[in-house]
Parts: sequence; C-alpha cells; structure tokens
Amino acid sequence: MKNPPSSAKPFDLTKYLVEKRDLINRSLLQIIDKNFTDSRLCDAMTYSLMAPGKRLRPVLCLAAAETVGKINSNVITAACGIEMIHTYSLIHDDLPAMDNDNIRRGKPTCHVKFDVATAILAGDALLTLAFDIFSSRSLHPNKKSNIWLQIINEIAQAAGPMGMIEGQMRDIAGENNPLGLDDLKKMHYLKTGALIKASVSTGALLGGGSKASIKHLETYASNIGLAFQVVDDILNVEGDPSKMGKAIGTDQSRNKSTYPALLGLAQSRQFASDLVNNALQAVKIFGNKANLLLALATYIIERKR
Amino acid sequence: MKNPPSSAKPFDLTKYLVEKRDLINRSLLQIIDKNFTDSRLCDAMTYSLMAPGKRLRPVLCLAAAETVGKINSNVITAACGIEMIHTYSLIHDDLPAMDNDNIRRGKPTCHVKFDVATAILAGDALLTLAFDIFSSRSLHPNKKSNIWLQIINEIAQAAGPMGMIEGQMRDIAGENNPLGLDDLKKMHYLKTGALIKASVSTGALLGGGSKASIKHLETYASNIGLAFQVVDDILNVEGDPSKMGKAIGTDQSRNKSTYPALLGLAQSRQFASDLVNNALQAVKIFGNKANLLLALATYIIERKR
Repeated sequence: MKNPPSSAKPFDLTKYLVEKRDLINRSLLQIIDKNFTDSRLCDAMTYSLMAPGKRLRPVLCLAAAETVGKINSNVITAACGIEMIHTYSLIHDDLPAMDNDNIRRGKPTCHVKFDVATAILAGDALLTLAFDIFSSRSLHPNKKSNIWLQIINEIAQAAGPMGMIEGQMRDIAGENNPLGLDDLKKMHYLKTGALIKASVSTGALLGGGSKASIKHLETYASNIGLAFQVVDDILNVEGDPSKMGKAIGTDQSRNKSTYPALLGLAQSRQFASDLVNNALQAVKIFGNKANLLLALATYIIERKR
Repeated sequence: MKNPPSSAKPFDLTKYLVEKRDLINRSLLQIIDKNFTDSRLCDAMTYSLMAPGKRLRPVLCLAAAETVGKINSNVITAACGIEMIHTYSLIHDDLPAMDNDNIRRGKPTCHVKFDVATAILAGDALLTLAFDIFSSRSLHPNKKSNIWLQIINEIAQAAGPMGMIEGQMRDIAGENNPLGLDDLKKMHYLKTGALIKASVSTGALLGGGSKASIKHLETYASNIGLAFQVVDDILNVEGDPSKMGKAIGTDQSRNKSTYPALLGLAQSRQFASDLVNNALQAVKIFGNKANLLLALATYIIERKR
C-alpha cells in the first residue's frame, strides 16, 4: 500500500500467518483424528484438506475475532469448518466436468490422485462435515446455540445456491461467453466474496463483536474479497506457476472474462489498490487494533501466489 | 404382513400418503418460491426436487411426529430439508462417474436433462440449502435453538462421511467386487438406513417425543430402512420398470452384491418380513398410535415401486 493510515505500526504478518496457519492445520488434524476412519473417502478428504493452502478464510476469521475481542476454541472450530467448505468447492470446481484442472495447491487435484467419483464424494463429505462440526454438541454450551444457528445460516447462505454455487455456475457459463465488468464483479462476489465475508462476520460474532463492528468488518471483507480476485486474475496473466501451485494462462485459453482483459493490467492493479483502500477506511474505527487487518489487506494485494 | 398386532385397526394409508406427499410438495414449492431465482441452477434443483418421488423420508418424519405428538411447522421444515438431502444424493449417485443412471423418478436424470457440471452443482446446492433452512432464523424462536442444533448434527452425521457418503463409496467399491452379507448390511445401513433413522428421530424430537420413545422409533426406523433396501434389491430383479421409474436388472449387470444373489428370492422376502416384524415389535409400546407406522412398514414391504 502506498498510503498506510498514520496509525499503522509495523506488524509482523509473516510470523502471524505462520502461527495461524499452523494453528488451523493442527486443529484440522485434530478434527481428522477424531472423525476420520481408515477409508479411501477419508484419505481423499485428508489429501485435499491438508494440501498446503493459503488458509485465507480461516486466517480472516481468526483476525476478525482478534480485532473485536479474542480467539477462542469456538472461533477455531468455525475457521476449520469454513476451510472445509472452501476445500470442497475447490475439489468440485477442479472436476473434469467443470474447470478440469490437474494441479491444485501444488499437488495433483483430488480426482487425478483418486478418481472422479471419490473426488465428488470427498467434496460432498467435507461440506457435510463442516455442518457437523458447527453443530457439534461438545462445542456448544447451551447459551451459544442461537449464535451458532445464526452462523450456520450465514455460512449456508454464502456457500449455497444464492452464493458460492451460483457464482461457480456463472463462472462456467462465462467461458466462451465473456461477462461485462458489472457481471464479472457480481460473479466474483458470489463465487468468493460471500464466503470471505461470512468468514469475517463469523469470527467477529464468535469473538464477541457488536453489530456495528461486524458491519465495518463486512465492508472490509467485501472489498478485500474482490481485491483478492482481481489479483488472482493478474497472477493468472503474469504469475509464476512454480510459486502459485497451479497453472497460469488458463483464463485466456478458456476465453474467460478477467479484469486484465477488461481493464488492462495497470488499471486492474489500480482497481485492486482502490478496493484495499476502501477496506482500510472501513476498519479505521478500530485504531491500532486494525493493524492486523491492514497487514492482511496488503498481503492480499502484494502476494505472488 | 401376515400377523399384524392385535391392536391394529384399519388405517387408510393410501389417503395418508396422498395427503402427506401433497403437504410436502406444497411446502417444498413454498421454499422454492422463497429462495430460488430464475437461473439454470435453480431450474435443475427444482427439476430433481419436484420429480415424483415416494417422499419416504419426509413421510416417516411426519409420521414419527404424529406418533409421539403432532405435526407442526418445524416438523414440516425438517422433512423438506431431509428430502433435499435425499434428492442431492440421488443426483450425485446417478452421475456418469458413479452409477451412470439415465432415468430417475420416471424422468431423465439431472445430468441428462441439464449437464454434468450443473447436476454436480445442483446437488451441492440442495445439500447446502437444507442446512440453510434448518438454521433459518424465521423458523426458530430462541427456545428451540438447542433442538435444532441437535437435529442439524444428527442429520449431518447421518448424511456425512461416517454415514450416507461412506455408504455410497462402499456401494461403488462393491461393483465387480461383491460384498458378503454382513458387509452388505453395513453398506446399506450407511447408505440409506442412517438418514431414514435420522428422519424418524428428527420428527419425534420436533414432535415433542421423550428420549425413550425416540429410541423405540429409531429401532423401528433401522429395521424398516434395511427392509426397504432388501425390497429394492428384490424389485431390481423382478420389478416392473414402468411402475418403478427406473431401470431393473442393473444390479446383476454391474455384478453387485444383493440380497437375492446372496440369499435367494424366497429367503430375501423372509428376511424383509422378519425386519418389518422387528420394527413393529419396537413400536408396540405406542398402542393404537402405532397403526400409522404399522401401515407404513407394510407398505414398504409390499410396494411395487
């Protein structure tokens, strides 16, 4: 970012990301240990879930909780469930009938490593398991039931037919039938923005945030969610596939609408930068507590993978 | 049934099924009206959801509620969500990478009518929407939150990687690698029995049943769930495809283990009859109130589709 708010202090994001990814990975492994059996299905679920991802959604969930309060075991559970839902969406999007991708998170995609039937079912299973752990009795003293129902509802709406899944439908339909800028933004909001927003509001809700603070965090999330996608498109043009863990140039070969194609590379970078600035404006209200969110927004725009 | 309990009185099941299927179909259409937009995704979801199914799971959910108390709007919502989960499982099981079936509920399967990508996403969307409506705020006065979290958890477990999805994995693995009787029973319990049991316990819980009565109903459900599957296998050998709305003879051509193949037809019929008798024993405690469950069990064993 060119103009960080004056309240910004140096924040060691690298250390934070290592710590929080490690926390998420350990928590996911605990869930696996507790729930998984020795089966091909669980092998496939573990394979995709534990492949080295950025863990962006769970990290944002934890960061939102920290901004308004603190991380507790409920927040970690929610973050893990959200990562399961994200992983299921990647497994299904990569299928031959959809994007037909062979590499994901630097490894063969689930259907390549296993087979198409197993990949479909592993995705289904990760989605279902997320709702299992959100509703697990051992995690919810009675007084928290209302909040958990609200979280389940928000996440189901973000991930469902009026959210992520409709986004994927529009993404597929956009191949060879390019979208205009407004439709492209709407598609991205549905496909990735809605779940990113839900990740942040879930963390804030479980961290004890007020309604007003959650609203600010949601504005932050909507803006960095779209910025993330713009940067994804830029990286698909000029990224380094060895760093990204997936192929580049695929958007053009599929004749898909992208921000670089619609706006040019320089304008796309400016658009991403504007979005990140909007995001930072929205969380100024948190003062120094927003340094973490500021650093995360900067990471999203400057990332190479 | 050859020996109905002496307490049995004539029960007009045909009328009951028509009424309750109609109630479920109207309620599903209300959910569709409220949640669906004009999109290919929603068209595919509606197509499969509203195809003429037996509505066995929602009917059992309603019947369980009636046995212990009465049907209320919460029970109907739960029944609709369970039917969505069942429909999603049919859409995915029918895919070319799995059972590759072309006909379901008397109509072309979802991937034949639409395409494979749309069918995968329509299944994903129905599964996610079920959890959306289970957790919908408008349906839950605060005091019910605990019960709904419990229901979400039971259904997610029944439908998840330790339930229905693992059952489908084992069913696929069983092709050309036939299972023994115990493994076949276990596979069926996972693939269909667990969700049938959850349908009954959900109805009983929302209908106000005691822990003890729910236990009796679960025993009933486990037995009729397996009986249903045994009859399915028998119908796959000697059923009338025009009545069933799907192909017959497919188990043998896929070299799948079935009860008729393992036990012979006569023994399979006896096994189904024994299971139904077990089911009826379990609900004797409800006296005349069990007449509905008795009639449903008889229907399951005598059905031609």
